[in-house]
Amino acid sequence: MAWSPRRSAGRRLQLPLLCLLLQGATAILFAVFVRYNRETDAALWHWGNHSDADNEFYFRYPSECGRSGQGQRVVWPLPFDLGDEREFCRCRMINADFCAGAVLISFGAILGKTGPVQLLLMALLEVVLFGLNEFVLLSLLEVKDAGGSMTIHTFGAYFGLILSRVLYRPQLEKSKHRQGSVYHSDLFAMIGTIFLWLFWPSFNSAPSALGDGQHRTTLNTYYSLTASTLSTFALSALVGGDGRLDMVHVQNAALAGGVVVGTSAEMMLTPFGALAAGFLAGAISTLGYKFLTPILESKLKVQDTCGVHNLHGMPGVLGALLGVLVAGLATHEAYGDGLKSVFPLIAEGQRSATSQAMHQLFGLFVTLTFASVGGGLGGLLLRVPILDSPPDAQCYEDQIYWEVPGEHEHLAQVSEETETQA
Amino acid sequence: MAWSPRRSAGRRLQLPLLCLLLQGATAILFAVFVRYNRETDAALWHWGNHSDADNEFYFRYPSECGRSGQGQRVVWPLPFDLGDEREFCRCRMINADFCAGAVLISFGAILGKTGPVQLLLMALLEVVLFGLNEFVLLSLLEVKDAGGSMTIHTFGAYFGLILSRVLYRPQLEKSKHRQGSVYHSDLFAMIGTIFLWLFWPSFNSAPSALGDGQHRTTLNTYYSLTASTLSTFALSALVGGDGRLDMVHVQNAALAGGVVVGTSAEMMLTPFGALAAGFLAGAISTLGYKFLTPILESKLKVQDTCGVHNLHGMPGVLGALLGVLVAGLATHEAYGDGLKSVFPLIAEGQRSATSQAMHQLFGLFVTLTFASVGGGLGGLLLRVPILDSPPDAQCYEDQIYWEVPGEHEHLAQVSEETETQA
Amino acid sequence: MAWSPRRSAGRRLQLPLLCLLLQGATAILFAVFVRYNRETDAALWHWGNHSDADNEFYFRYPSECGRSGQGQRVVWPLPFDLGDEREFCRCRMINADFCAGAVLISFGAILGKTGPVQLLLMALLEVVLFGLNEFVLLSLLEVKDAGGSMTIHTFGAYFGLILSRVLYRPQLEKSKHRQGSVYHSDLFAMIGTIFLWLFWPSFNSAPSALGDGQHRTTLNTYYSLTASTLSTFALSALVGGDGRLDMVHVQNAALAGGVVVGTSAEMMLTPFGALAAGFLAGAISTLGYKFLTPILESKLKVQDTCGVHNLHGMPGVLGALLGVLVAGLATHEAYGDGLKSVFPLIAEGQRSATSQAMHQLFGLFVTLTFASVGGGLGGLLLRVPILDSPPDAQCYEDQIYWEVPGEHEHLAQVSEETETQA
Repeated sequence: MAWSPRRSAGRRLQLPLLCLLLQGATAILFAVFVRYNRETDAALWHWGNHSDADNEFYFRYPSECGRSGQGQRVVWPLPFDLGDEREFCRCRMINADFCAGAVLISFGAILGKTGPVQLLLMALLEVVLFGLNEFVLLSLLEVKDAGGSMTIHTFGAYFGLILSRVLYRPQLEKSKHRQGSVYHSDLFAMIGTIFLWLFWPSFNSAPSALGDGQHRTTLNTYYSLTASTLSTFALSALVGGDGRLDMVHVQNAALAGGVVVGTSAEMMLTPFGALAAGFLAGAISTLGYKFLTPILESKLKVQDTCGVHNLHGMPGVLGALLGVLVAGLATHEAYGDGLKSVFPLIAEGQRSATSQAMHQLFGLFVTLTFASVGGGLGGLLLRVPILDSPPDAQCYEDQIYWEVPGEHEHLAQVSEETETQA
Repeated sequence: MAWSPRRSAGRRLQLPLLCLLLQGATAILFAVFVRYNRETDAALWHWGNHSDADNEFYFRYPSECGRSGQGQRVVWPLPFDLGDEREFCRCRMINADFCAGAVLISFGAILGKTGPVQLLLMALLEVVLFGLNEFVLLSLLEVKDAGGSMTIHTFGAYFGLILSRVLYRPQLEKSKHRQGSVYHSDLFAMIGTIFLWLFWPSFNSAPSALGDGQHRTTLNTYYSLTASTLSTFALSALVGGDGRLDMVHVQNAALAGGVVVGTSAEMMLTPFGALAAGFLAGAISTLGYKFLTPILESKLKVQDTCGVHNLHGMPGVLGALLGVLVAGLATHEAYGDGLKSVFPLIAEGQRSATSQAMHQLFGLFVTLTFASVGGGLGGLLLRVPILDSPPDAQCYEDQIYWEVPGEHEHLAQVSEETETQA
Repeated sequence: MAWSPRRSAGRRLQLPLLCLLLQGATAILFAVFVRYNRETDAALWHWGNHSDADNEFYFRYPSECGRSGQGQRVVWPLPFDLGDEREFCRCRMINADFCAGAVLISFGAILGKTGPVQLLLMALLEVVLFGLNEFVLLSLLEVKDAGGSMTIHTFGAYFGLILSRVLYRPQLEKSKHRQGSVYHSDLFAMIGTIFLWLFWPSFNSAPSALGDGQHRTTLNTYYSLTASTLSTFALSALVGGDGRLDMVHVQNAALAGGVVVGTSAEMMLTPFGALAAGFLAGAISTLGYKFLTPILESKLKVQDTCGVHNLHGMPGVLGALLGVLVAGLATHEAYGDGLKSVFPLIAEGQRSATSQAMHQLFGLFVTLTFASVGGGLGGLLLRVPILDSPPDAQCYEDQIYWEVPGEHEHLAQVSEETETQA
């Protein structure tokens, strides 16, 4: 257990002090700015009592606060709002959730090579940039991105990848043997994959319009997920040694179908379109794990711990482009009166379908720019030498930051016991 | 890692090519036949705008598309429909889910002794037969089977078991040592049991009628599950060596209560009836694992990898018979106006309760026939020699079809590291 | 596998016979007393058909049967009711669920040192006392406790701790080496933590009033959980050896925020209040694991297997006191017309806010009394010598009560196979 040299008091205190600082700052912001909104406050909710209150409560809120609605205000990903309406509702929680998703994706690129303090600082920076990027896309450009192919996946992935590039460690092969997957952990990780698979349709459809919008988003996401699962198995066996499947591909690429329809699932993508998109995403993602990740590391010096480029980066960009295509094909015939909820600006005649498509494309570039510049800045921030980052030889090692009981001990006990019995 | 001899190119390509073929066929069928239905299509949904649309949307759909409704069309388990109404809705997804359940049950009988290509081919055949059997039962015989004691559990189990009989391997004991449960895997499998337990009430009640029907189905399923859990613990300790409990029993038989009320949970089974049924199912299932499985293998040459005969076969048949009994006892007094939604033909006077019971019983025989003939055909199909099935000595072994990192490596590293430190 | 000496037939039969006895008793009670209620019975539900039945069904039930409603009858935690209304509804299931939660908490204090028969007997006693305590609190004192800081957490924890005190084993260090956490099990246990974290907001809000009440409870619980998570990480690193985090703290103390707002989450706690409460609970809980648990064991002779005192005991009491405070601060201004659903007696003028606070405080004392006396009685009951409790040297050992396949075997096989290949 004597792996790591003793850390200095300064380094040991970084994590607790940063946690306490963030907690304190949040508490102050909450005390000053956050109030219950009408749906949550006992007095406001019961004021001017509505005849059919219960129903309205449940049925009105999603359309009111959906990311798909028109005329949104700046919605801060952290659950407070500096505007003059100091209120807070569940839709903000969903938004905060989405922002947390982007941060988790970025974590995937740098996990194991960074300490907890670095991860927290990165999260702090990313949350702010996520909010800005989302504001530009959804409120200024009025781009559609319900499931976040751009705002969550593309942004999170490239933010993390650029950051990982800045933190490049040429000596990382010293820790390489610890990065490989382990039989038990692989089974364990499949639980995560299964739950992500199951809940991805809800995830994509949560902020889309109630009714046909949510229904359509859910179904398109399911179609796409099934297609990406099948193409992952096909491609994994095709490129695997001796035709064998790779657990890492299945754990990840099977989910690419959810990422790729993030923008277009609420549009009239058609069931066939969803299938085709998912198939393509699964294939690209699997091939990425096999062929691109090693090149990224050796040529571009991007060390992508969990392969977020394959699951979130490429499928996210593909999803954004798919959104451009499907938005450009939008017609009054295909959407009928539903055009108002999916593309309000086209319905009102303020934009043509082609113009909406161009805005979508521009939104992708904005996202990539925010992600790259932000990731670069983040990398520089995380290279500040006083931060407690692990040495090259101890990356991917729990024991630096965690008290690990170790199965060695356990196995030792077992054999001890066996001897005692004998 | 040199377990398996190198596979020929032909065998290595079977899985990817079959996946791609199925994906392509599905895509073509989707392109030609599948369209969004009224609840999913932007134009259709908004057409002829309804005053109270949101509510109606949520409240009407289950009764419209429930398996419990009258006058159903053929509902294909694969999510497309060759009829003239080319539409698709969530109820089809539930149906597809149920079909997938039957296939997973059949997998349980042959897992470890078959390759992925064989499993895919089996699934293809079973999906077609599942659809035919369900059509005969629900639409021709107008049998009630909301939770699928017959259509899912009995069909899936006996299809798999007959198939396993045809694939009988006399030399399987060469791989026997790999089939036993392992401490860590047993804990892991309990996660699956817990989630199945929790969601079984939703599973059984999903296709039953909204309102009292779903409520009753949920409660009956809970009662039955608790009773089967208790009887599993009782019986497992009673028949276990030295009064000890067996994890395999708990993982499986505790769920038998959900299977046994699959047909009758939506009927007026009464809380006591649900308890009694669950108790019986848990007991039969536990005893089956202890006494029947070895006999099935040695005498009837049915090698049942996961014991699906105990969890799905016997409790499924028992559930079908329970449905016969409860249907036969249906009276206008007990159901009141609710008779219309549970037994529409009795309510309309087209059938007596006894006649409905006879139809239910006949439904069981139809299911067993479909399962047996189908399983036999499936077995013959899977014995085609070019299929990539594992040799007798390598059954229950991941490494033939999967790239396995192996804990050996990991343990080796650990000891290596320890030495390095020392 | 020859760890344990052979058990006598009498001891071996205790568990199955007790299970069968309980099952039989429940069945008789169900047969005599339990009937479907209006929402579940086919005839009752359809009788006097209501125009807008579906909606009413869904929207009325929670307010009718919520623990927050006034004028509740005695609600038995076991799903039957001896009153003259022999009916049963979902709210009873939620109640039974909550009662099961209290029993599981008590299990946490004595796990590993007791046999299954002892656990069952304890559960039987605790269920009765839980029902009595809840009746006194909710119906006689008309105390508010939606999420059960008092009725579930405080009661369950101190019942188990006092019981563990009575069962004190001075020689337990013989089994101490088996109690430590293991790397794989720690990862595995995190699944449980994650699901508890995710569903805690639903848990706390399930019995609170529909509308603003449930919404507020959900949000307060989320805020509190996030704060306790952050404070757990801060404190764990602060008190950990060399600034390292402890998995046991994270698994448990991160949930303390859910416990601490159990009473007050449905009140106007304010977002800041929820943050502060969660922060405090996470800190106390983490410090408890580090410093208090060893003292409890060495000085007070309370052997608390899972540390329920830290996760449920102290945060539960803190939550009850927080409820006293927030109830005492209730004003007509803050709650408006919502006061009727949160504090009906204050709204009707029967109690002042201060009086309600005093009742809340008295409720805590009642709970502690019930828990202490009940735990003491339970301990005496469980010390009856004929019960099959594990000897001191075999505590925390699965193999006494379970057939354990053992990873030894598996590892043996692996090495055997490797040799065979070599």
